[in-house]
Amino acid sequence: MSELTIWTYDWVPEGPRGFVRDLRLRWACEEAGLAYTVRTVPFEGRETNHLAQQPFGQAPFLSDGDLELFESGAGLLHLAGKSERLMPRDPAGAAQTLQWTIAALNSIEMVTVPWWFLTISGEPDNKLGGWASSRLDQLEKVLGEREWLVADRFTVADLLMADVLRVPKVRAFGDRPASEAYVARLTDRPAFRKARADQIAHFEAADPR
Amino acid sequence: MSELTIWTYDWVPEGPRGFVRDLRLRWACEEAGLAYTVRTVPFEGRETNHLAQQPFGQAPFLSDGDLELFESGAGLLHLAGKSERLMPRDPAGAAQTLQWTIAALNSIEMVTVPWWFLTISGEPDNKLGGWASSRLDQLEKVLGEREWLVADRFTVADLLMADVLRVPKVRAFGDRPASEAYVARLTDRPAFRKARADQIAHFEAADPR
Repeated sequence: MSELTIWTYDWVPEGPRGFVRDLRLRWACEEAGLAYTVRTVPFEGRETNHLAQQPFGQAPFLSDGDLELFESGAGLLHLAGKSERLMPRDPAGAAQTLQWTIAALNSIEMVTVPWWFLTISGEPDNKLGGWASSRLDQLEKVLGEREWLVADRFTVADLLMADVLRVPKVRAFGDRPASEAYVARLTDRPAFRKARADQIAHFEAADPR
Repeated sequence: MSELTIWTYDWVPEGPRGFVRDLRLRWACEEAGLAYTVRTVPFEGRETNHLAQQPFGQAPFLSDGDLELFESGAGLLHLAGKSERLMPRDPAGAAQTLQWTIAALNSIEMVTVPWWFLTISGEPDNKLGGWASSRLDQLEKVLGEREWLVADRFTVADLLMADVLRVPKVRAFGDRPASEAYVARLTDRPAFRKARADQIAHFEAADPR
């Protein structure tokens, strides 16, 4: 009997609501039909108050009975091990799901997140723009040729890639119709919509009255 | 019977020799005692000439019989599935190896690689410096408390983290004695030294005579 707990902040400002990465884990559990509980750590003092569980002071982390994992990407791959709905069980499907999950983290997000950070930090003309644009163009080509990244079906790689691409500044950065249709399709899934609504309600409930 | 092939470029300029990411896969195979062959794709025109195998035109990719995987991080986790020397087999050890492997890719490298890119692109005072410094400080704290990231033993997470940290500009960015000792210890392993020497010899052999 698994006892999944998704740990996130008790509260965040309005801006990041709907984008905090516990949403990735909620979405995966909803897709897979895995029961889970949400528990919290304080947002205030986050850089020091839960370093025992997460050495970079981030959320989310996941506990599964006695196991604890930080890094949303690791949590997703751990959950994928529990459900074929998240990852095919044949060796080729599993390997390709792994490869595209890592590609979302290390070929796309490694460029888009720092680009986004500089853009909102007053350096919109930084040199990461060309690199980000080129990676997104390469991905657009892939998404123009197929509906899903792996095995003609939804996997956790799509969940993660869509979450990486749906960041508003990334989504608005150039005109890439296949990527846009992909994000629209993925974020229209009932499991995503429930996960997003639950996260927003969670943070709203903690607003000062 | 596994048939592992590590695909890399036929040649690269002198600068990146010893740092091209096929080294990660060579090193893992050497640690695990897994037999492998190295084959090449052309460096010239790399952004378009092997998009069928790697949609971002990068090296390395790995083939294992009929399976193909790109992304060095995915290749490492795939190899870890073949050898306990790379990843413990108990659930806690496996989960922590996964989490630290993803942390190297998405919490450290996601900041240090773009910081490095801007630094060598004529923007050394970019705003990623503070973020990179903070992440490296958090990691320094972890490495000050233990010799290995996981389970008191070498795992593929150490292999990857050391490879991320050994980039010369990252290694020289501030004074972090525990991280420096960690990199020195990991890169003194016979498997690393053989992988690095083999990669350098591979690229040197292709130099124009």
